[in-house]
Amino acid sequence: MLEDLSLEEQKSVVKVGDVAVGGDELTVMAGPCAVESREQLMKAARQVKKSGGQILRGGAFKPRTSPHSFQGLKEQGLKYLAEAREETGLKIVTELLDSTDIELVNQYTDILQIGSRNMQNYGLLKKLGELDTPVMLKRGYAATIKEWLLAAEYVISHGNPNVILCERGIRTFETATRYTMDLNAIALIKEKTNLPVIVDPSHGTGKRSLVGPLAKAGISVGADGVMMEVHPNPEEALCDGQQSLTLDGYDQLMKELSAVAEISNKKLAV
Amino acid sequence: MLEDLSLEEQKSVVKVGDVAVGGDELTVMAGPCAVESREQLMKAARQVKKSGGQILRGGAFKPRTSPHSFQGLKEQGLKYLAEAREETGLKIVTELLDSTDIELVNQYTDILQIGSRNMQNYGLLKKLGELDTPVMLKRGYAATIKEWLLAAEYVISHGNPNVILCERGIRTFETATRYTMDLNAIALIKEKTNLPVIVDPSHGTGKRSLVGPLAKAGISVGADGVMMEVHPNPEEALCDGQQSLTLDGYDQLMKELSAVAEISNKKLAV
Amino acid sequence: MLEDLSLEEQKSVVKVGDVAVGGDELTVMAGPCAVESREQLMKAARQVKKSGGQILRGGAFKPRTSPHSFQGLKEQGLKYLAEAREETGLKIVTELLDSTDIELVNQYTDILQIGSRNMQNYGLLKKLGELDTPVMLKRGYAATIKEWLLAAEYVISHGNPNVILCERGIRTFETATRYTMDLNAIALIKEKTNLPVIVDPSHGTGKRSLVGPLAKAGISVGADGVMMEVHPNPEEALCDGQQSLTLDGYDQLMKELSAVAEISNKKLAV
Amino acid sequence: MLEDLSLEEQKSVVKVGDVAVGGDELTVMAGPCAVESREQLMKAARQVKKSGGQILRGGAFKPRTSPHSFQGLKEQGLKYLAEAREETGLKIVTELLDSTDIELVNQYTDILQIGSRNMQNYGLLKKLGELDTPVMLKRGYAATIKEWLLAAEYVISHGNPNVILCERGIRTFETATRYTMDLNAIALIKEKTNLPVIVDPSHGTGKRSLVGPLAKAGISVGADGVMMEVHPNPEEALCDGQQSLTLDGYDQLMKELSAVAEISNKKLAV
Repeated sequence: MLEDLSLEEQKSVVKVGDVAVGGDELTVMAGPCAVESREQLMKAARQVKKSGGQILRGGAFKPRTSPHSFQGLKEQGLKYLAEAREETGLKIVTELLDSTDIELVNQYTDILQIGSRNMQNYGLLKKLGELDTPVMLKRGYAATIKEWLLAAEYVISHGNPNVILCERGIRTFETATRYTMDLNAIALIKEKTNLPVIVDPSHGTGKRSLVGPLAKAGISVGADGVMMEVHPNPEEALCDGQQSLTLDGYDQLMKELSAVAEISNKKLAV
Repeated sequence: MLEDLSLEEQKSVVKVGDVAVGGDELTVMAGPCAVESREQLMKAARQVKKSGGQILRGGAFKPRTSPHSFQGLKEQGLKYLAEAREETGLKIVTELLDSTDIELVNQYTDILQIGSRNMQNYGLLKKLGELDTPVMLKRGYAATIKEWLLAAEYVISHGNPNVILCERGIRTFETATRYTMDLNAIALIKEKTNLPVIVDPSHGTGKRSLVGPLAKAGISVGADGVMMEVHPNPEEALCDGQQSLTLDGYDQLMKELSAVAEISNKKLAV
Repeated sequence: MLEDLSLEEQKSVVKVGDVAVGGDELTVMAGPCAVESREQLMKAARQVKKSGGQILRGGAFKPRTSPHSFQGLKEQGLKYLAEAREETGLKIVTELLDSTDIELVNQYTDILQIGSRNMQNYGLLKKLGELDTPVMLKRGYAATIKEWLLAAEYVISHGNPNVILCERGIRTFETATRYTMDLNAIALIKEKTNLPVIVDPSHGTGKRSLVGPLAKAGISVGADGVMMEVHPNPEEALCDGQQSLTLDGYDQLMKELSAVAEISNKKLAV
Repeated sequence: MLEDLSLEEQKSVVKVGDVAVGGDELTVMAGPCAVESREQLMKAARQVKKSGGQILRGGAFKPRTSPHSFQGLKEQGLKYLAEAREETGLKIVTELLDSTDIELVNQYTDILQIGSRNMQNYGLLKKLGELDTPVMLKRGYAATIKEWLLAAEYVISHGNPNVILCERGIRTFETATRYTMDLNAIALIKEKTNLPVIVDPSHGTGKRSLVGPLAKAGISVGADGVMMEVHPNPEEALCDGQQSLTLDGYDQLMKELSAVAEISNKKLAV
């Protein structure tokens, strides 16, 4: 099935400044779903840093199912992210939605995130191949593992070997959770390729209370890192509040993840 | 479920020059998956015209799962399409893959096709809202009906009311056919909205022998038109040969569709 | 995929008394989801007969998702069905849930229906192989076409060649309709085997307004018959009211189906 | 979604003789897919015992997709299982396929396993409610969590509170693994109910090399135990060889699971 894939020049460790994704340290990416204001972002960023994360997430361009939902702060959001990086020293990961915004987003971010709905936006993937910036490629919510790896191959074969994968749940018949996390996929990809893989239990479950258990499971199955949504006030979030950890919840979970990481031969500096 | 949708300014009939999609005539769009050469395209185009089609399909920019597969003839392909239109009088529908190519593709085509993998490429959808050119929005292969209609709403609410939907099969657990055609969706959309809907049994089944039966079923369930892949020599097609009709097969099928259209109160000029 | 299947001794026409399923007549099976009372059943039966149906459906043993839902009238329900047959001349199809009830149900019914949840109840299938009574095997809602045909093979290879298939929708990610009708499956099975296939748009859509369009589509794609839920008072049905046709709605639809059947070379005596 | 479920009299710890499933000890069930011979079973059983398992699995009645595949040794298989229990002291879990075999299977086994294809065989579930024997109810491969819990409710509300759930993978569009393990489901069920849940990574992945990683993930997410297929010679297994651990592989994995169990506050006596 996957035997005929030859991912050219793939890297097993992707360097994001002094953060190594895919090495012996567990990478933690955390922050709000969307950047909503300077205050909201800074509160989240400080907690992410304090509890042991390395990378701050936050969407400035938001791909929303309805055109009438909040679409993100755009460049202003990117500026807040840069400010948070300046203050905390965290790296930044943020989503790129459209090829016309590459230059703008690339100017601000440390990792370009390609969201689930864009995993097969091949024009965009080819353009990412012309950059050096690390790309985090989320799995399409209905993409097979093979299609996902071939999407990575688009970026890699066009010249950018710095690809990080992110499993964020797939769409199945089950509706009690937002998506179904496919941890089989993480195990299989770690066996067949040497690409770094991050697990995103916030989107993968859609429920705050399940983020912890699935983060632990993702680490146990071999993920190189965890991406989590954290918000100073989830009840008032403009996007995905019900799956966001509170600042305290995040802090508590980080302590628990540390023990799990150790069993999986990963370090987590808390 | 769909009750809260208000598709702004949607049209029940979309005009493509003198072809009306969504009226009392059944619209037939046919042609090869990909434009491969002038000769291949012209042969297909002449047959499409002769057997009673109104719109010629053919991909110049191809979204392929692997970066190592044929990616299309690009602008040269668009030129062949224009040439075929010139000779036959058929209108053209061709896929737009990336927002950076809008101007180029829009220059040549009569309908801009947005493929399944781009249905939630919201940046692209917004830009289409700034044009007048009819847009054929294929359903994402794992998009719910609601998400599909909201994607249409992106185009419509940004100013372009000329949206045609196309059901092309969804991804399910079944592997005996390439996709599972969701004809429930066509019936439901015709009940709840007045958008025109086309059925694409070539992608929806992936098998030449099933194109006819599913085309008939699609018309019976209320589709306003049919899109079919036709190739002068399917065995040597660079893309999707096993689901392409031969020229003779297409001619034969058109005669059969005529009777089915009549029952469904649609005319088909064969 | 399906090439290695050899369905032993399968019949292309299954005789149910003087009704031939799979021949040149379109078979119509209709009636309430569950037998609720003598009055309810008789009203439905008379309409089914009057509008041109041949077979009366009605569940006496109901497989309900919750143990706290109405479980059926059991033997009393079977007796009402027999009474309705006596009066109207319709044949009967009713569901067999458990192998311990075979003798009882077989005593009353003309066709033993095996429901979706029991399609892979292999112990039951083997026992059906020892009878001569026609078996209508509904597709498991998540069974592949191959698994479905192999389930038929269980019955056939154990000695009973009188198997009728029934496509009743599969479970997918789409929630706007109850299930997704897989008409690809009907077309493929009619191509690869000669087993009769019935389409059940009531369960396949879960919505009264979609039963007509999908019944037509099912006939167009090659189904040998249609199964529909009809209830004298759907609003008060103990089971599946929202997908049941009214008596008038059924009568009206039968007239429309007649024209569609003709196009598909099937006769429907209305 | 699940809020309206009231599982009557459910137990958080199910006693299987002196083995407590759902308490502070991690339960390990292991053994061959099918009982093939006395020798095969005894070899597996001795290893299961030696490496720290408590319960021996092995199918005597096998639900096979094709009627032409090996159907199990039936009563002879049950006798071998009893013999293995006698020698090793392990408890036994084996599948019950049909309600006519309840008495026979119940005579031999300590836990009655209801397989995925029978999860909605309601006649069978009701009869299990009349026994005291613990029932391990595998999730239907396309059953929602709610349907699964309601199936458990069938057994419990008919009088048998000794129900153990087993997540064994669901059917999705992904074909690179046999099924997709739904660990979200385990986390959600542990949050909403107090039923014990076992994880079965052998069926859930279909690949020997993924059994270990998914077993660990299952324990991390909160499972009360693990079920694994172990065979003295997987290459020659009559059933599911490619997902069976070797005796050595099993022994090695048990050591690794011990550390993971500890993190999850479960003891595993190796």
